[in-house]
Amino acid sequence: MESLFIIKIGGNVIDDIASSDTFLSNFASINAKKILIHGGGKIATKIGEQLGIQPNYLNGRRITDAATIDLVTMVYGGLVNKKIVAKLQSLGCNAIGLTGADGNIIPATKRPVKDVDYGFVGDVKIDEVNTNNVEILLANNFTLIVAPLTHDGHGQMLNTNADTIASSLAVALSKSYAVRLVYCFEKNGVLENVDDENSVIPLITKEKYQQLLSENKLFDGILPKIDNAFAAIQSGVQEVLIGNAKHLLQNVTIHTKGTLIK
Amino acid sequence: MESLFIIKIGGNVIDDIASSDTFLSNFASINAKKILIHGGGKIATKIGEQLGIQPNYLNGRRITDAATIDLVTMVYGGLVNKKIVAKLQSLGCNAIGLTGADGNIIPATKRPVKDVDYGFVGDVKIDEVNTNNVEILLANNFTLIVAPLTHDGHGQMLNTNADTIASSLAVALSKSYAVRLVYCFEKNGVLENVDDENSVIPLITKEKYQQLLSENKLFDGILPKIDNAFAAIQSGVQEVLIGNAKHLLQNVTIHTKGTLIK
Repeated sequence: MESLFIIKIGGNVIDDIASSDTFLSNFASINAKKILIHGGGKIATKIGEQLGIQPNYLNGRRITDAATIDLVTMVYGGLVNKKIVAKLQSLGCNAIGLTGADGNIIPATKRPVKDVDYGFVGDVKIDEVNTNNVEILLANNFTLIVAPLTHDGHGQMLNTNADTIASSLAVALSKSYAVRLVYCFEKNGVLENVDDENSVIPLITKEKYQQLLSENKLFDGILPKIDNAFAAIQSGVQEVLIGNAKHLLQNVTIHTKGTLIK
Repeated sequence: MESLFIIKIGGNVIDDIASSDTFLSNFASINAKKILIHGGGKIATKIGEQLGIQPNYLNGRRITDAATIDLVTMVYGGLVNKKIVAKLQSLGCNAIGLTGADGNIIPATKRPVKDVDYGFVGDVKIDEVNTNNVEILLANNFTLIVAPLTHDGHGQMLNTNADTIASSLAVALSKSYAVRLVYCFEKNGVLENVDDENSVIPLITKEKYQQLLSENKLFDGILPKIDNAFAAIQSGVQEVLIGNAKHLLQNVTIHTKGTLIK
């Protein structure tokens, strides 16, 4: 099967124009089919403050009220997405910016209200991802730049976590492509010693993971990422690479940096 | 040649949710390839005010400064575009929202500074419209929803008049399709008597136009629209229909409402 890179970058890469430029140059130079999923960074919070939209948190999770879904549709789907697209086009990459509503690529269901009403948040069912439309675009040499937004099929945009968008697309497309899922974050990879960015563990297999767990060596916040990575692999994704956007993409095809999960 | 409808709606249709819903239902039901170009309406001005962005006019034309291009990229390319896309998807129309940067469909040049610096305004050269990418999308049954934004090929988004986007796409695509260009505005069509919405002139030929001109019968503001219409027809567009969004699209295929220019 043909290779497909699905690469997720966090808000911190977007916020820093210099690292964003380097990142996008590296991304543009990947000579294979590719999809980029981006978060929104601090700019959404900043513009929200200017518009008088008060962030509303519950157990550390932001509630997406009506004003907030409009805000993130503007900022993620408009400003951030189109800046990335225009930059990639200037680098010769045939980028096309999409939300989950465009071409109905990622339909979602508004999260049911149980104890908490998270508001306009979309839960994705992987088997509803419109792989047909995604594959048409990829086959015609478009590079998809996807904002972390979905829609409910009844005209309402929804907010969906960018990691979830990335893993949902990765699993859904693994039937047609050899998918390599890349999570860029602020650390160089999974570290043996959380304070030493040079202690990257180059490869984590299931056995290595069990060993690291039993040795209590994994730093806070990395567990869900590794769990998600193994879940994606179990569902057909070929491999998952975790590391720092600064170094990762230059080497994405040869894996000299970051942590490879297989 | 296959028919292609290129339909431009103004901000007033977007601002009024009720007429917008009717319009989009009618648009979705057009059983042919179609492209929708939308303006931004008053919402961009409203959000700009909330963000403290002062509109900057010169000879009645708005200057697009750095804050304003970000504003319209957010509002036109994000909020308005995605609301239309989500609504059309709910109506079974395979809408995909784009700016001129996406798939590089409409490259532009920043307007040269002569007497006036209009700022980040893009002038389109019709022969640079990327008809190849547009045709790929149309051939794969996507309905393009285009925000009035272009890019300069060096990473900068630009602001371009929605009428210009519509006529540029219409002329460029007239080599491959029998293009019918539809301008929706607030009047029922070209009127014999500007105060009587029932006095629509159903058909304007070149001869009829000369006659109306010599009789001084054309109301203010309609002349550039008719001139543009004839220019488009001269460049290969099959026909231009001008009228009110409320009535026009129900009848777009049979021309019982509005003014047809041929």
